[in-house]
Amino acid sequence: MNTLIIVSHPTIADSPTQQFLKASAAGVKGATWHHLDEINPLDVAAEQALIQAADRLIFEFPLYWYQAPASLHQWLAAVWTRGFAYAETGGKLTGKTLGLVVSYSQPKQAYQIGGSEGVSMSTLLSPYQALARKTGLTLLAPLEIAQFSYLTEEQRAHLFTRYQQYLTVPQPARFADQAAWFLAELAARGKADSTAALMASTLAERQDQLTSLRQTIAELREGEAD
Amino acid sequence: MNTLIIVSHPTIADSPTQQFLKASAAGVKGATWHHLDEINPLDVAAEQALIQAADRLIFEFPLYWYQAPASLHQWLAAVWTRGFAYAETGGKLTGKTLGLVVSYSQPKQAYQIGGSEGVSMSTLLSPYQALARKTGLTLLAPLEIAQFSYLTEEQRAHLFTRYQQYLTVPQPARFADQAAWFLAELAARGKADSTAALMASTLAERQDQLTSLRQTIAELREGEAD
Repeated sequence: MNTLIIVSHPTIADSPTQQFLKASAAGVKGATWHHLDEINPLDVAAEQALIQAADRLIFEFPLYWYQAPASLHQWLAAVWTRGFAYAETGGKLTGKTLGLVVSYSQPKQAYQIGGSEGVSMSTLLSPYQALARKTGLTLLAPLEIAQFSYLTEEQRAHLFTRYQQYLTVPQPARFADQAAWFLAELAARGKADSTAALMASTLAERQDQLTSLRQTIAELREGEAD
Repeated sequence: MNTLIIVSHPTIADSPTQQFLKASAAGVKGATWHHLDEINPLDVAAEQALIQAADRLIFEFPLYWYQAPASLHQWLAAVWTRGFAYAETGGKLTGKTLGLVVSYSQPKQAYQIGGSEGVSMSTLLSPYQALARKTGLTLLAPLEIAQFSYLTEEQRAHLFTRYQQYLTVPQPARFADQAAWFLAELAARGKADSTAALMASTLAERQDQLTSLRQTIAELREGEAD
């Protein structure tokens, strides 16, 4: 899978989050780091060729006043033209996937009704859902990075892997896809054998069962409360 | 009332909508037209002084990929600094009002669930609600301008007035405030007399009664459907 990571960040050298993600992306075959604020001048045809060569697009940015920084807006306005991004007969993006990697300095629970920010991340990011819908892109659930500077070493290691999965796994939120990814990683490091394969598939199966049981319990509890 | 109209539009000379609004704003005392894309270089202190001198801020822009163009984002990131826009002890914006004048080329009904864009304008503009909440600004209901180029002469005349009211009337959606505005306009043109005053106050009263009756009917109908 070819993944184009479209990064919008005006002061990226000072961003520990983006430096960390860049190091993580460097370990992913087929992933291209594309920092918008460094492009000058903008070559629309070259940008469109990059997009067309990708199976997955990632919009990666910090929240500035609840939205992406200016460079993403500028790039979209210039590059996602009528005829390319959308057209009567279908645009060139149809069938690709779009992921969002969004970082912010509040805790995750701030972004919900009644939270300190009073609005959910899904609501704030609704323009990207509308954009995906318009262009035939399949939108992935966002990968949110809350308060990167407070993460423990273990949490960072976890994020490192979750981000790599987000760049390439068909459905990053599906346990079966995650297990397949682990197996492929082991294989790439020459460590895969039938035991590892069995372990990975068992893990995926157990996880899916666990999720299903948890849902059942949640539904039963909701029933009680009615 | 001092109103700062913060316009974000990269090709404003080619925008009949913005040219029309600029002409409308020119007739409003205390309104300042401030086109962001023409500012170069940006003087943060001067921008902050402009903002502080205003009682009402207007963000005015066309929708580009469901969001404001880049210049508004750039300006916000540079000018709305911590300490100015928000602070532990309260920022400098608290108590002012914020209006949004948003233009787009789809019909208004496109922006709702089940509509051709599949999302409401309120949802798309949620970042501005969050921003107003954070900074202590009172957000006005947006003034939406759908398909300006298809408006009839009469609809344009209506928009001309509605926009002028939006720039200065305390609550642009309140009939009483609209009536007071009409009266003030007549007075300014030397045409106000006691008949005009009576007409305006009667109009406001009747409109409010009308709204109240319509709400009652709507509620009764909802009751029937339950």
